Amino acid sequence: MTVRIGILGYGNLGRGVEGAVSRNPDMELVAVFTRRDPASVKIATAGVPVVSDSEAAAWKDRIDVLILGGGSATDLPRQTPAFAELFNVVDSFDTHARIPEHFANVDAVARNSGHLALICCGWDPGMFSLNRVYANAILPDGKDYTFWGKGVSQGHSDAIRRIEGVKDARQYTIPVDSALEAVRSGSNPELTTRQKHTRECFVVLKDGADPAKVEQAIKTMPNYFADYDTTVHFVSAETLASEHAGLPHGGFVIRSGTTGASGEYRDVIEYSLKLDSNPAFTGSVLVAYARAVHRLRQEGQIGCRTVLDVAPSYLSPLSGDELRKTLV
Amino acid sequence: MTVRIGILGYGNLGRGVEGAVSRNPDMELVAVFTRRDPASVKIATAGVPVVSDSEAAAWKDRIDVLILGGGSATDLPRQTPAFAELFNVVDSFDTHARIPEHFANVDAVARNSGHLALICCGWDPGMFSLNRVYANAILPDGKDYTFWGKGVSQGHSDAIRRIEGVKDARQYTIPVDSALEAVRSGSNPELTTRQKHTRECFVVLKDGADPAKVEQAIKTMPNYFADYDTTVHFVSAETLASEHAGLPHGGFVIRSGTTGASGEYRDVIEYSLKLDSNPAFTGSVLVAYARAVHRLRQEGQIGCRTVLDVAPSYLSPLSGDELRKTLV
Repeated sequence: MTVRIGILGYGNLGRGVEGAVSRNPDMELVAVFTRRDPASVKIATAGVPVVSDSEAAAWKDRIDVLILGGGSATDLPRQTPAFAELFNVVDSFDTHARIPEHFANVDAVARNSGHLALICCGWDPGMFSLNRVYANAILPDGKDYTFWGKGVSQGHSDAIRRIEGVKDARQYTIPVDSALEAVRSGSNPELTTRQKHTRECFVVLKDGADPAKVEQAIKTMPNYFADYDTTVHFVSAETLASEHAGLPHGGFVIRSGTTGASGEYRDVIEYSLKLDSNPAFTGSVLVAYARAVHRLRQEGQIGCRTVLDVAPSYLSPLSGDELRKTLV
Repeated sequence: MTVRIGILGYGNLGRGVEGAVSRNPDMELVAVFTRRDPASVKIATAGVPVVSDSEAAAWKDRIDVLILGGGSATDLPRQTPAFAELFNVVDSFDTHARIPEHFANVDAVARNSGHLALICCGWDPGMFSLNRVYANAILPDGKDYTFWGKGVSQGHSDAIRRIEGVKDARQYTIPVDSALEAVRSGSNPELTTRQKHTRECFVVLKDGADPAKVEQAIKTMPNYFADYDTTVHFVSAETLASEHAGLPHGGFVIRSGTTGASGEYRDVIEYSLKLDSNPAFTGSVLVAYARAVHRLRQEGQIGCRTVLDVAPSYLSPLSGDELRKTLV
């Protein structure tokens, strides 16, 4: 079985999906759709056409699953329902507060058009979500902790770039080791925002900008930095390019709880990721779930799903027999 | 929805299941079945009958899911198919090499009797299995590592007890920190059995036994100890009872692999458990999957399954809407 994949949007995530498709022998990249001028988009895979997204309908019968590489702020709320008219789709929508609304919108379209859609795929939401659900089901009495990093937060990097006098910036979110250790000990600490993560910023100034003023603007920025211990380093554009070009990320989902009739035993369940490239890993998760979506659609399923609704075996290219022999 | 639970076998695992049922408000313990004289079995839950397992058929319509607490060597190969004639069942069969055979036996009976069976549930096999499958699907190019401990291995403790001159014993399996760190670094080391785990034994001698002889017998025992660095401590029965009465366990499943079109990025996925009580935690996993089995049976499913075949949402008492609002 080959799964014919389309990619919508060729930014960091689209490239991550493309890389992941190339690593899975049962996957085939069929087309990349873009809202830019297709002639201006050069992709890595030889022989695969880049097509204007306005012409996607013509590809309806040549693509099993369309993977969306757009952003959650403005792209996906519009794109996922629109393209679920034409395709089975997988997206990485990650605005946690708006998931129920996005789910309802996509579900309505997909049911009507007879397609299967999987939203909120990736690592958080995604792998972290399902680890939270497994751990909560096993330890109903307990406490959840999520830590992110060490990794680059694109949202926070962008927020710094919008400050007057800033030419470029890269922000790292870093979990506080002592907080992680306290959680792992099973003591179920109450942790403030400041106690869980620190933020480290590498900033390139524009000519003539006042570093003290920029540093103050970063450190007092509400929501983004004011509640954190933030460190600001001013570096040259060359240093930023040579030492901070990557997009590493990762994090920890920990549930600490009790078992035994009277809660006499304490358990800690921990899941963690350490990723050289956030978009390459997210793309790999999207591709594994595209395999699942294709199979579930072949079994007749339509409508919207999240990773919580998909049994693990559907992600694997191995058969049930093979899985029971080798990985159970 | 209340799920009416029966427990077959009232050893450590049966008690663990009983404790877990009491912690889940949507679960109700209906009966405990035993092959011993029911009058001799005193259970923790007030008002619940203890019944001879030969009378289980009479409880067919009063139990939604029967959870089996027996051992994999001789109990479950016989019990799981036999009781799948009468009930939906969940077991913790853990003889990895015989899983395909056990699956086939249980599947044939359950399909024929119209019941749903879930086998190989717990943490390994169980939670560790599904973490291996998820991680392999996301990182097709990579290497799996499983470490166990620090924890009590019942099989190894039993093996020591069978040595002449040994009155009692407790064996801890301990992962080697430097091996864990090497794996976490992403260097994909080749590790021998000796490099991954050490074994620590606390042994109570019978009067007049020769400690040197017992230590030699332990350290050279094939399969169990010969391939490991093993430490033997001789202690009094009182010390064993006061300091080594618990059944802690845990472990680590780690996959280290690459992403990116040419494998240019390296990722590490790690899942770990730190458990005060192995049977209490295993019981908690069995109960969460009993909830799933009940629901899936209500949807019309029959036959045999493993944890790989069950979507995470089925384990949770929360609805899909609630899960999407709170845990995705």
